Amino acid sequence: MSAPLYEGKSKQVFAGDEPGTYLIHFKDDATAGNGEKHALLDNKGVLNAAISNLIYDYLAKNGVPTHLIKVINETDVLVKAAKILPLEVIIRNVAAGSFSKKYGVPEGNELKSRVVEFSLKDDGLGDPMLSPSHILALGLATEEEIFDVTVQALKVDELLIALFDKAGIRLIDFKLEFGKTDDGKIILCDEISPDSCRLWDAGTNEKMDKDRFRRDLGNVMDYYAEVLDRLKKVL
Amino acid sequence: MSAPLYEGKSKQVFAGDEPGTYLIHFKDDATAGNGEKHALLDNKGVLNAAISNLIYDYLAKNGVPTHLIKVINETDVLVKAAKILPLEVIIRNVAAGSFSKKYGVPEGNELKSRVVEFSLKDDGLGDPMLSPSHILALGLATEEEIFDVTVQALKVDELLIALFDKAGIRLIDFKLEFGKTDDGKIILCDEISPDSCRLWDAGTNEKMDKDRFRRDLGNVMDYYAEVLDRLKKVL
Repeated sequence: MSAPLYEGKSKQVFAGDEPGTYLIHFKDDATAGNGEKHALLDNKGVLNAAISNLIYDYLAKNGVPTHLIKVINETDVLVKAAKILPLEVIIRNVAAGSFSKKYGVPEGNELKSRVVEFSLKDDGLGDPMLSPSHILALGLATEEEIFDVTVQALKVDELLIALFDKAGIRLIDFKLEFGKTDDGKIILCDEISPDSCRLWDAGTNEKMDKDRFRRDLGNVMDYYAEVLDRLKKVL
Repeated sequence: MSAPLYEGKSKQVFAGDEPGTYLIHFKDDATAGNGEKHALLDNKGVLNAAISNLIYDYLAKNGVPTHLIKVINETDVLVKAAKILPLEVIIRNVAAGSFSKKYGVPEGNELKSRVVEFSLKDDGLGDPMLSPSHILALGLATEEEIFDVTVQALKVDELLIALFDKAGIRLIDFKLEFGKTDDGKIILCDEISPDSCRLWDAGTNEKMDKDRFRRDLGNVMDYYAEVLDRLKKVL
Protein backbone atom coordinates (compact mmCIF):
# COMPACT_ATOMS: atom_id res chain seq x y z
CA MET A 1 0.00 0.00 0.00
CA SER A 2 1.24 3.49 -0.80
CA ALA A 3 2.25 6.01 1.84
CA PRO A 4 -0.64 7.58 3.78
CA LEU A 5 -1.84 11.03 2.74
CA TYR A 6 -2.16 11.76 6.43
CA GLU A 7 -1.11 9.90 9.55
CA GLY A 8 -3.08 10.76 12.67
CA LYS A 9 -2.63 9.56 16.23
CA SER A 10 -5.07 6.67 15.83
CA LYS A 11 -5.80 6.51 12.10
CA GLN A 12 -4.12 6.59 8.70
CA VAL A 13 -5.74 8.14 5.64
CA PHE A 14 -4.85 6.83 2.15
CA ALA A 15 -6.06 7.83 -1.30
CA GLY A 16 -8.97 5.56 -2.29
CA ASP A 17 -9.07 3.57 -5.55
CA GLU A 18 -11.84 5.79 -6.92
CA PRO A 19 -11.27 9.54 -7.29
CA GLY A 20 -12.95 11.52 -4.55
CA THR A 21 -12.47 8.77 -1.96
CA TYR A 22 -10.15 8.05 0.94
CA LEU A 23 -9.38 4.80 2.67
CA ILE A 24 -9.16 5.16 6.45
CA HIS A 25 -7.27 2.60 8.53
CA PHE A 26 -7.99 2.37 12.28
CA LYS A 27 -4.75 1.76 14.21
CA ASP A 28 -4.24 0.11 17.60
CA ASP A 29 -2.44 3.22 18.93
CA ALA A 30 -3.90 4.96 21.95
CA THR A 31 -2.66 8.42 22.90
CA ALA A 32 -3.63 10.95 25.54
CA GLY A 33 -2.48 14.33 26.82
CA ASN A 34 -1.82 15.60 23.29
CA GLY A 35 0.40 12.58 22.51
CA GLU A 36 2.38 12.58 25.77
CA LYS A 37 1.00 9.18 26.75
CA HIS A 38 1.10 6.42 24.15
CA ALA A 39 0.36 2.70 24.03
CA LEU A 40 -0.61 -0.02 21.60
CA LEU A 41 -3.86 -1.62 22.70
CA ASP A 42 -4.46 -4.98 21.07
CA ASN A 43 -7.62 -5.01 18.94
CA LYS A 44 -8.40 -1.29 19.47
CA GLY A 45 -8.48 -0.55 15.74
CA VAL A 46 -10.93 -3.40 15.12
CA LEU A 47 -13.21 -2.40 18.02
CA ASN A 48 -13.25 1.32 17.21
CA ALA A 49 -13.86 0.65 13.52
CA ALA A 50 -16.74 -1.71 14.35
CA ILE A 51 -18.33 0.72 16.83
CA SER A 52 -17.86 3.74 14.57
CA ASN A 53 -19.24 1.89 11.54
CA LEU A 54 -22.36 0.80 13.40
CA ILE A 55 -22.92 4.37 14.60
CA TYR A 56 -22.29 5.99 11.20
CA ASP A 57 -24.71 3.54 9.61
CA TYR A 58 -27.34 4.39 12.25
CA LEU A 59 -26.78 8.14 11.78
CA ALA A 60 -27.00 7.88 7.98
CA LYS A 61 -30.30 5.98 8.28
CA ASN A 62 -31.52 8.85 10.43
CA GLY A 63 -30.66 11.54 7.89
CA VAL A 64 -27.19 12.66 9.01
CA PRO A 65 -24.83 13.04 6.02
CA THR A 66 -21.57 11.19 6.78
CA HIS A 67 -18.38 10.40 4.90
CA LEU A 68 -18.83 6.60 5.12
CA ILE A 69 -19.19 4.84 1.76
CA LYS A 70 -18.49 1.23 2.72
CA VAL A 71 -16.64 -1.02 5.11
CA ILE A 72 -13.62 -2.67 3.43
CA ASN A 73 -12.48 -4.96 6.22
CA GLU A 74 -12.44 -4.95 10.00
CA THR A 75 -10.02 -2.02 10.30
CA ASP A 76 -10.51 -0.18 7.01
CA VAL A 77 -13.32 1.93 5.58
CA LEU A 78 -13.82 3.71 2.27
CA VAL A 79 -15.07 7.29 2.74
CA LYS A 80 -15.94 10.34 0.68
CA ALA A 81 -12.99 12.69 0.32
CA ALA A 82 -13.69 15.92 2.18
CA LYS A 83 -11.66 18.90 3.30
CA ILE A 84 -11.72 18.64 7.09
CA LEU A 85 -12.76 21.89 8.80
CA PRO A 86 -9.96 22.92 11.21
CA LEU A 87 -12.41 22.66 14.12
CA GLU A 88 -13.24 20.06 16.70
CA VAL A 89 -16.90 20.22 17.70
CA ILE A 90 -17.53 19.00 21.23
CA ILE A 91 -21.00 18.44 22.60
CA ARG A 92 -21.32 18.22 26.37
CA ASN A 93 -24.47 16.81 27.99
CA VAL A 94 -22.94 16.49 31.47
CA ALA A 95 -19.88 18.15 33.05
CA ALA A 96 -16.69 16.07 32.73
CA GLY A 97 -13.06 16.15 31.66
CA SER A 98 -11.50 19.46 30.63
CA PHE A 99 -14.81 21.28 31.19
CA SER A 100 -14.94 20.19 34.84
CA LYS A 101 -11.33 21.13 35.41
CA LYS A 102 -11.51 24.47 33.62
CA TYR A 103 -14.69 25.74 35.27
CA GLY A 104 -14.44 23.97 38.61
CA VAL A 105 -17.61 21.91 38.08
CA PRO A 106 -17.54 18.37 39.54
CA GLU A 107 -17.64 15.53 36.99
CA GLY A 108 -21.15 14.22 36.53
CA ASN A 109 -22.88 17.50 37.35
CA GLU A 110 -25.88 18.30 35.20
CA LEU A 111 -25.67 21.42 32.98
CA LYS A 112 -28.44 23.98 32.51
CA SER A 113 -28.22 23.39 28.76
CA ARG A 114 -26.06 21.39 26.36
CA VAL A 115 -22.68 22.89 25.54
CA VAL A 116 -21.55 23.26 21.94
CA GLU A 117 -17.81 23.81 22.20
CA PHE A 118 -15.34 24.43 19.40
CA SER A 119 -11.61 24.03 19.45
CA LEU A 120 -8.92 24.66 16.90
CA LYS A 121 -7.49 21.42 15.49
CA ASP A 122 -3.84 22.25 16.17
CA ASP A 123 -1.77 19.90 18.31
CA GLY A 124 1.13 22.38 18.42
CA LEU A 125 -1.14 24.96 20.08
CA GLY A 126 -2.88 22.34 22.26
CA ASP A 127 -6.26 22.53 20.44
CA PRO A 128 -7.30 25.84 22.07
CA MET A 129 -11.00 26.53 22.58
CA LEU A 130 -12.74 28.90 20.17
CA SER A 131 -16.04 30.71 20.39
CA PRO A 132 -17.98 31.35 17.16
CA SER A 133 -16.67 34.93 17.28
CA HIS A 134 -13.06 33.63 17.24
CA ILE A 135 -13.83 31.25 14.37
CA LEU A 136 -15.09 34.16 12.27
CA ALA A 137 -12.23 36.49 13.25
CA LEU A 138 -9.66 33.86 12.30
CA GLY A 139 -11.48 32.96 9.06
CA LEU A 140 -11.68 29.28 10.04
CA ALA A 141 -15.29 28.87 8.88
CA THR A 142 -18.17 31.02 7.71
CA GLU A 143 -21.23 31.90 9.77
CA GLU A 144 -23.25 29.47 7.63
CA GLU A 145 -20.74 26.67 8.19
CA ILE A 146 -20.78 27.25 11.96
CA PHE A 147 -24.57 27.11 11.89
CA ASP A 148 -24.63 23.93 9.76
CA VAL A 149 -22.11 22.17 11.95
CA THR A 150 -23.92 23.19 15.14
CA VAL A 151 -27.29 21.95 13.89
CA GLN A 152 -25.78 18.65 12.72
CA ALA A 153 -23.86 18.13 15.94
CA LEU A 154 -26.96 18.70 18.07
CA LYS A 155 -28.91 16.27 15.89
CA VAL A 156 -26.15 13.68 16.27
CA ASP A 157 -26.30 14.25 20.02
CA GLU A 158 -30.04 13.55 20.16
CA LEU A 159 -29.71 10.42 18.02
CA LEU A 160 -26.76 9.12 20.03
CA ILE A 161 -28.36 9.81 23.41
CA ALA A 162 -31.37 7.71 22.28
CA LEU A 163 -29.15 4.93 20.91
CA PHE A 164 -26.83 4.68 23.92
CA ASP A 165 -29.77 4.92 26.29
CA LYS A 166 -31.17 1.71 24.78
CA ALA A 167 -27.74 0.16 25.36
CA GLY A 168 -27.72 1.19 29.04
CA ILE A 169 -25.04 3.83 28.47
CA ARG A 170 -25.00 7.55 29.31
CA LEU A 171 -23.52 9.81 26.65
CA ILE A 172 -21.62 12.39 28.69
CA ASP A 173 -19.81 14.25 25.91
CA PHE A 174 -18.20 13.61 22.53
CA LYS A 175 -16.09 15.17 19.81
CA LEU A 176 -16.98 15.41 16.13
CA GLU A 177 -15.13 16.54 13.03
CA PHE A 178 -16.77 17.75 9.87
CA GLY A 179 -15.51 18.09 6.31
CA LYS A 180 -16.57 19.88 3.17
CA THR A 181 -16.98 17.92 -0.06
CA ASP A 182 -16.04 19.32 -3.48
CA ASP A 183 -19.68 20.25 -4.06
CA GLY A 184 -19.71 22.31 -0.86
CA LYS A 185 -21.67 19.95 1.39
CA ILE A 186 -20.74 19.66 5.08
CA ILE A 187 -20.55 16.00 6.12
CA LEU A 188 -19.65 14.19 9.33
CA CYS A 189 -16.11 12.77 9.10
CA ASP A 190 -13.58 11.11 11.43
CA GLU A 191 -14.94 8.52 13.87
CA ILE A 192 -17.39 8.13 16.77
CA SER A 193 -16.06 5.60 19.26
CA PRO A 194 -15.07 5.26 22.92
CA ASP A 195 -11.95 7.22 21.87
CA SER A 196 -14.04 10.28 21.02
CA CYS A 197 -16.97 9.94 23.46
CA ARG A 198 -17.34 9.79 27.22
CA LEU A 199 -19.65 6.83 27.88
CA TRP A 200 -20.73 5.87 31.40
CA ASP A 201 -22.64 2.75 32.35
CA ALA A 202 -26.20 3.89 33.07
CA GLY A 203 -26.43 1.75 36.17
CA THR A 204 -23.03 2.13 37.81
CA ASN A 205 -21.56 5.26 36.12
CA GLU A 206 -18.46 3.17 35.38
CA LYS A 207 -16.38 4.67 32.59
CA MET A 208 -16.51 2.72 29.32
CA ASP A 209 -14.30 5.02 27.23
CA LYS A 210 -10.82 6.39 26.70
CA ASP A 211 -10.76 7.87 30.21
CA ARG A 212 -9.92 4.29 31.31
CA PHE A 213 -6.67 4.73 29.36
CA ARG A 214 -6.10 8.41 30.23
CA ARG A 215 -6.59 7.75 33.95
CA ASP A 216 -5.06 4.24 34.13
CA LEU A 217 -8.32 2.61 35.20
CA GLY A 218 -7.42 -0.67 33.49
CA ASN A 219 -9.27 -3.17 31.25
CA VAL A 220 -9.61 -0.55 28.53
CA MET A 221 -10.36 -2.96 25.68
CA ASP A 222 -12.81 -5.03 27.75
CA TYR A 223 -14.97 -1.94 28.08
CA TYR A 224 -14.67 -1.03 24.40
CA ALA A 225 -15.76 -4.62 23.57
CA GLU A 226 -18.68 -4.25 25.98
CA VAL A 227 -19.78 -1.03 24.24
CA LEU A 228 -19.69 -2.85 20.90
CA ASP A 229 -21.66 -5.83 22.27
CA ARG A 230 -24.35 -3.62 23.73
CA LEU A 231 -24.68 -1.56 20.54
CA LYS A 232 -24.97 -4.73 18.43
CA LYS A 233 -27.86 -5.88 20.61
CA VAL A 234 -29.87 -2.70 20.07
CA LEU A 235 -29.07 -1.97 16.43
CA MET B 1 -13.33 54.99 56.55
CA SER B 2 -14.96 51.61 57.13
CA ALA B 3 -13.57 48.35 55.76
CA PRO B 4 -14.04 47.81 52.02
CA LEU B 5 -16.94 45.63 50.85
CA TYR B 6 -14.53 44.24 48.28
CA GLU B 7 -10.80 44.61 47.74
CA GLY B 8 -9.65 43.98 44.17
CA LYS B 9 -6.15 43.97 42.75
CA SER B 10 -6.24 47.64 41.80
CA LYS B 11 -9.39 49.01 43.43
CA GLN B 12 -11.32 49.01 46.70
CA VAL B 13 -15.12 49.15 46.85
CA PHE B 14 -16.84 50.72 49.87
CA ALA B 15 -20.50 51.24 50.72
CA GLY B 16 -21.52 54.74 49.57
CA ASP B 17 -23.19 57.30 51.84
CA GLU B 18 -26.49 56.97 49.97
CA PRO B 19 -28.21 53.58 49.74
CA GLY B 20 -27.72 51.93 46.35
CA THR B 21 -24.28 53.47 45.88
CA TYR B 22 -20.67 52.34 46.17
CA LEU B 23 -17.52 54.37 46.54
CA ILE B 24 -14.66 53.06 44.43
CA HIS B 25 -11.06 53.91 45.31
CA PHE B 26 -8.37 53.52 42.62
CA LYS B 27 -5.16 52.12 44.15
CA ASP B 28 -1.56 52.49 42.97
CA ASP B 29 -1.14 48.69 42.86
CA ALA B 30 -0.22 47.11 39.55
CA THR B 31 -0.48 43.37 39.12
CA ALA B 32 0.02 40.99 36.21
CA GLY B 33 0.01 37.25 35.53
CA ASN B 34 -3.01 36.71 37.79
CA GLY B 35 -1.30 38.50 40.69
CA GLU B 36 2.11 36.83 40.34
CA LYS B 37 3.77 40.14 39.52
CA HIS B 38 3.04 43.09 41.78
CA ALA B 39 4.30 46.65 42.17
CA LEU B 40 3.20 50.01 43.49
CA LEU B 41 3.33 52.59 40.71
CA ASP B 42 3.33 56.12 42.00
CA ASN B 43 0.28 58.08 40.82
CA LYS B 44 -1.32 55.11 39.00
CA GLY B 45 -4.58 55.41 40.91
CA VAL B 46 -4.87 59.11 40.07
CA LEU B 47 -4.06 58.57 36.37
CA ASN B 48 -6.40 55.59 35.91
CA ALA B 49 -9.23 57.32 37.75
CA ALA B 50 -8.80 60.45 35.59
CA ILE B 51 -8.67 58.48 32.33
CA SER B 52 -11.57 56.23 33.29
CA ASN B 53 -13.71 59.15 34.43
CA LEU B 54 -13.15 61.04 31.17
CA ILE B 55 -14.07 57.94 29.18
CA TYR B 56 -17.15 57.09 31.26
CA ASP B 57 -18.36 60.66 30.90
CA TYR B 58 -17.86 60.47 27.11
CA LEU B 59 -19.66 57.10 26.92
CA ALA B 60 -22.59 58.34 29.01
CA LYS B 61 -22.96 61.39 26.74
CA ASN B 62 -23.13 58.95 23.85
CA GLY B 63 -25.91 56.85 25.34
CA VAL B 64 -24.02 54.07 27.13
CA PRO B 65 -25.47 53.41 30.60
CA THR B 66 -22.61 53.35 33.13
CA HIS B 67 -22.30 53.07 36.90
CA LEU B 68 -20.62 56.47 37.34
CA ILE B 69 -22.59 58.95 39.45
CA LYS B 70 -19.91 61.50 40.29
CA VAL B 71 -16.23 62.05 40.88
CA ILE B 72 -15.45 62.51 44.59
CA ASN B 73 -11.76 63.30 44.42
CA GLU B 74 -8.80 62.36 42.24
CA THR B 75 -8.82 58.68 43.25
CA ASP B 76 -12.42 58.11 44.34
CA VAL B 77 -15.73 57.92 42.49
CA LEU B 78 -19.31 57.39 43.58
CA VAL B 79 -21.10 54.78 41.49
CA LYS B 80 -24.46 53.02 41.27
CA ALA B 81 -24.50 49.76 43.19
CA ALA B 82 -24.81 46.85 40.80
CA LYS B 83 -24.38 43.12 40.99
CA ILE B 84 -21.35 42.45 38.80
CA LEU B 85 -21.96 39.71 36.20
CA PRO B 86 -19.30 37.00 36.73
CA LEU B 87 -18.01 37.60 33.20
CA GLU B 88 -15.20 39.60 31.69
CA VAL B 89 -16.11 40.84 28.22
CA ILE B 90 -13.10 41.33 25.97
CA ILE B 91 -13.34 43.04 22.61
CA ARG B 92 -10.44 42.47 20.23
CA ASN B 93 -9.95 44.69 17.19
CA VAL B 94 -6.43 43.45 16.41
CA ALA B 95 -4.60 40.26 17.46
CA ALA B 96 -2.48 40.69 20.62
CA GLY B 97 -1.75 39.25 24.05
CA SER B 98 -3.34 35.94 25.04
CA PHE B 99 -5.20 35.73 21.73
CA SER B 100 -1.94 35.85 19.76
CA LYS B 101 -0.31 33.29 22.00
CA LYS B 102 -3.28 30.92 22.10
CA TYR B 103 -3.99 30.86 18.36
CA GLY B 104 -0.48 31.48 17.01
CA VAL B 105 -1.39 34.79 15.37
CA PRO B 106 1.37 37.46 15.44
CA GLU B 107 0.62 40.55 17.53
CA GLY B 108 -0.69 43.38 15.39
CA ASN B 109 -2.30 41.13 12.77
CA GLU B 110 -5.66 42.29 11.52
CA LEU B 111 -8.69 40.07 12.21
CA LYS B 112 -11.42 39.23 9.71
CA SER B 113 -13.97 40.53 12.21
CA ARG B 114 -13.97 41.87 15.77
CA VAL B 115 -13.79 39.26 18.51
CA VAL B 116 -16.25 39.31 21.40
CA GLU B 117 -14.64 37.10 24.03
CA PHE B 118 -16.00 36.12 27.42
CA SER B 119 -14.14 34.77 30.38
CA LEU B 120 -15.20 33.64 33.82
CA LYS B 121 -14.21 36.13 36.53
CA ASP B 122 -12.44 33.60 38.75
CA ASP B 123 -8.80 34.17 39.69
CA GLY B 124 -8.54 30.72 41.26
CA LEU B 125 -9.44 29.12 37.91
CA GLY B 126 -7.33 31.62 35.93
CA ASP B 127 -10.31 33.42 34.32
CA PRO B 128 -11.01 30.66 31.78
CA MET B 129 -12.56 31.59 28.43
CA LEU B 130 -16.27 30.93 27.91
CA SER B 131 -18.37 30.81 24.77
CA PRO B 132 -22.02 31.89 25.00
CA SER B 133 -22.96 28.19 25.07
CA HIS B 134 -20.80 27.71 28.20
CA ILE B 135 -22.30 30.78 29.86
CA LEU B 136 -25.80 29.35 29.41
CA ALA B 137 -24.83 25.83 30.49
CA LEU B 138 -23.23 27.18 33.67
CA GLY B 139 -26.14 29.54 34.35
CA LEU B 140 -23.83 32.56 34.52
CA ALA B 141 -26.13 34.81 32.50
CA THR B 142 -29.28 34.54 30.41
CA GLU B 143 -29.42 34.65 26.64
CA GLU B 144 -30.88 38.17 26.89
CA GLU B 145 -28.09 39.32 29.20
CA ILE B 146 -25.44 37.93 26.84
CA PHE B 147 -27.11 39.76 23.97
CA ASP B 148 -27.36 43.04 25.92
CA VAL B 149 -23.77 42.89 27.04
CA THR B 150 -22.54 42.06 23.53
CA VAL B 151 -24.45 44.94 21.94
CA GLN B 152 -23.22 47.39 24.60
CA ALA B 153 -19.61 46.19 24.35
CA LEU B 154 -19.60 46.57 20.56
CA LYS B 155 -21.06 50.06 20.89
CA VAL B 156 -18.38 50.97 23.46
CA ASP B 157 -15.78 49.64 21.01
CA GLU B 158 -17.02 51.89 18.20
CA LEU B 159 -17.14 54.93 20.46
CA LEU B 160 -13.68 54.27 21.90
CA ILE B 161 -12.08 53.58 18.51
CA ALA B 162 -13.35 57.00 17.35
CA LEU B 163 -12.18 58.73 20.54
CA PHE B 164 -8.71 57.19 20.66
CA ASP B 165 -8.28 57.72 16.93
CA LYS B 166 -8.62 61.47 17.48
CA ALA B 167 -5.96 61.12 20.18
CA GLY B 168 -3.56 59.33 17.80
CA ILE B 169 -3.99 56.01 19.59
CA ARG B 170 -5.01 52.59 18.22
CA LEU B 171 -7.43 50.62 20.39
CA ILE B 172 -6.16 47.05 20.04
CA ASP B 173 -8.36 45.30 22.63
CA PHE B 174 -9.98 45.95 25.99
CA LYS B 175 -11.85 44.32 28.84
CA LEU B 176 -15.21 45.41 30.23
CA GLU B 177 -17.31 44.36 33.19
CA PHE B 178 -21.03 44.81 33.47
CA GLY B 179 -23.37 44.82 36.43
CA LYS B 180 -27.09 44.49 37.00
CA THR B 181 -28.89 47.14 39.05
CA ASP B 182 -31.74 46.35 41.41
CA ASP B 183 -34.24 47.33 38.72
CA GLY B 184 -32.68 44.78 36.34
CA LYS B 185 -30.76 47.15 34.06
CA ILE B 186 -27.36 46.10 32.71
CA ILE B 187 -24.83 48.90 33.14
CA LEU B 188 -21.12 49.29 32.42
CA CYS B 189 -19.10 48.99 35.64
CA ASP B 190 -15.43 48.71 36.66
CA GLU B 191 -12.97 50.97 34.79
CA ILE B 192 -11.64 51.70 31.31
CA SER B 193 -7.99 52.68 31.51
CA PRO B 194 -4.55 51.63 30.23
CA ASP B 195 -4.86 48.81 32.79
CA SER B 196 -7.82 47.32 30.92
CA CYS B 197 -7.07 48.33 27.30
CA ARG B 198 -4.25 47.73 24.86
CA LEU B 199 -3.41 51.14 23.41
CA TRP B 200 -0.75 51.60 20.74
CA ASP B 201 0.57 54.91 19.46
CA ALA B 202 -0.98 55.34 16.00
CA GLY B 203 2.30 56.56 14.52
CA THR B 204 4.89 54.29 16.12
CA ASN B 205 2.82 51.36 17.49
CA GLU B 206 4.56 51.96 20.83
CA LYS B 207 2.65 50.40 23.71
CA MET B 208 0.95 52.93 25.99
CA ASP B 209 -0.74 50.46 28.36
CA LYS B 210 -0.23 47.85 31.05
CA ASP B 211 1.86 45.70 28.69
CA ARG B 212 4.69 48.14 29.58
CA PHE B 213 4.42 46.77 33.12
CA ARG B 214 3.69 43.12 32.17
CA ARG B 215 6.65 43.03 29.78
CA ASP B 216 9.04 45.31 31.71
CA LEU B 217 9.17 47.92 28.94
CA GLY B 218 9.71 50.74 31.43
CA ASN B 219 8.28 54.27 31.91
CA VAL B 220 4.85 52.83 32.60
CA MET B 221 3.40 55.94 34.25
CA ASP B 222 4.85 58.31 31.64
CA TYR B 223 2.76 56.55 29.03
CA TYR B 224 -0.38 56.52 31.19
CA ALA B 225 0.10 60.27 31.69
CA GLU B 226 0.52 60.69 27.93
CA VAL B 227 -2.77 58.84 27.31
CA LEU B 228 -4.50 61.19 29.77
CA ASP B 229 -2.98 64.29 28.16
CA ARG B 230 -4.03 63.25 24.69
CA LEU B 231 -7.58 62.39 25.81
CA LYS B 232 -7.91 65.76 27.56
CA LYS B 233 -6.98 67.51 24.31
CA VAL B 234 -9.73 65.82 22.31
CA LEU B 235 -12.51 65.70 24.88
